[in-house]
Amino acid sequence: MTIPTTLTRMPDRASHNRSDLDALLDEVLVATLSTVVDDQPWTVPMFFARDEDRVLIHGSTGAGLLRILATGTPTTLSVHVLDGIVVAETAFESSANYRSAVLRGTFTPVPEGELEDALRTLTDRLIPGRSNEVPPSTRKELAATQVLQLPITPGSWIYKSRQGPSGMPGQPVEQVWAGVVPVEQIYTTPVADDWVAPDLPPPSSVQRLLATNPRASS
Amino acid sequence: MTIPTTLTRMPDRASHNRSDLDALLDEVLVATLSTVVDDQPWTVPMFFARDEDRVLIHGSTGAGLLRILATGTPTTLSVHVLDGIVVAETAFESSANYRSAVLRGTFTPVPEGELEDALRTLTDRLIPGRSNEVPPSTRKELAATQVLQLPITPGSWIYKSRQGPSGMPGQPVEQVWAGVVPVEQIYTTPVADDWVAPDLPPPSSVQRLLATNPRASS
Repeated sequence: MTIPTTLTRMPDRASHNRSDLDALLDEVLVATLSTVVDDQPWTVPMFFARDEDRVLIHGSTGAGLLRILATGTPTTLSVHVLDGIVVAETAFESSANYRSAVLRGTFTPVPEGELEDALRTLTDRLIPGRSNEVPPSTRKELAATQVLQLPITPGSWIYKSRQGPSGMPGQPVEQVWAGVVPVEQIYTTPVADDWVAPDLPPPSSVQRLLATNPRASS
Repeated sequence: MTIPTTLTRMPDRASHNRSDLDALLDEVLVATLSTVVDDQPWTVPMFFARDEDRVLIHGSTGAGLLRILATGTPTTLSVHVLDGIVVAETAFESSANYRSAVLRGTFTPVPEGELEDALRTLTDRLIPGRSNEVPPSTRKELAATQVLQLPITPGSWIYKSRQGPSGMPGQPVEQVWAGVVPVEQIYTTPVADDWVAPDLPPPSSVQRLLATNPRASS
């Protein structure tokens, strides 16, 4: 058994469009990274950012997984979004609407000279525009941080998606409800730290972040 | 380097309480499963359900990953929830509130005689109470489905969490906002399939599911 690089089951759920992959990578904030240590899988959820044709991750220079990944060990980076619960007239036909992707490859360290730019990209991934509001990274902070990059190349990723209704039963059934319960991730009202002046509003970056979210309560 | 079974960095973020683990497993709907094939990591996001001291997954008897997992290969099951974005006065101190867990072990097939009960558990995990509203699984459906179980045992899992404010800066800074932007996952208004009678409400199970969600728009 070899690892498939294309979908062998339900190939209609696959996409080979980089734009689909990029949209998903740019929406999800936490990926699951897996590698192999002593013939065992090793898995850690981690914040990440896509930057053009690569994915960036960062962490303390003391972080065990990052140290291992930096050696070029084969790694997967997996992301998913649950878009809805598909309620069919039978349990068997019930399903979920989702988008998911698994990237495969090896991480390499981002060169020291590119570290600051990479960290700005990571900061702005979490809160767009935030890097312009905070002081630049100090030498000490840069020395304590490692950033790794995973290239996104043709054939190195699988994208899967299921969208749409539950589908007509074999024969229409009267008085049966079937459909989709959408699932969304939202930002809610920001909570200021105790020491922050009570009348101080969140920074522009945070306010813009909330504005992207039509259901936010603030 | 061996795989850590306890947290070596930031051990204060760990929990060894099964109740914390169970609450997380009972909240998250999609896990990321990883195993090793040909010395490479193989990773697939998948729906799952905790059932007492085990985790259940299911799929088609034709699903490649399930076939491999059923052979008893070492596997990780990883889940995470992003609870908030932690906005600090510097990029370096910015962070995220989250809960995550990685379980480690080997899956075994659920015995044929327990298949129906296991499938009911999986159905009710997605929509609590749904299994009482749908017809029982047919022989054909049961024959097409495999269910695997992963035991939850002491020492086989790691739970990590960060919660709370961004933390006081070294010296309080005037006119700086810091705090947390909470992140929530919500259900929104159900969308009935086209063929469903327009006046038919969603079943009780779906209505209860929406009622668990104070921000749902229906």
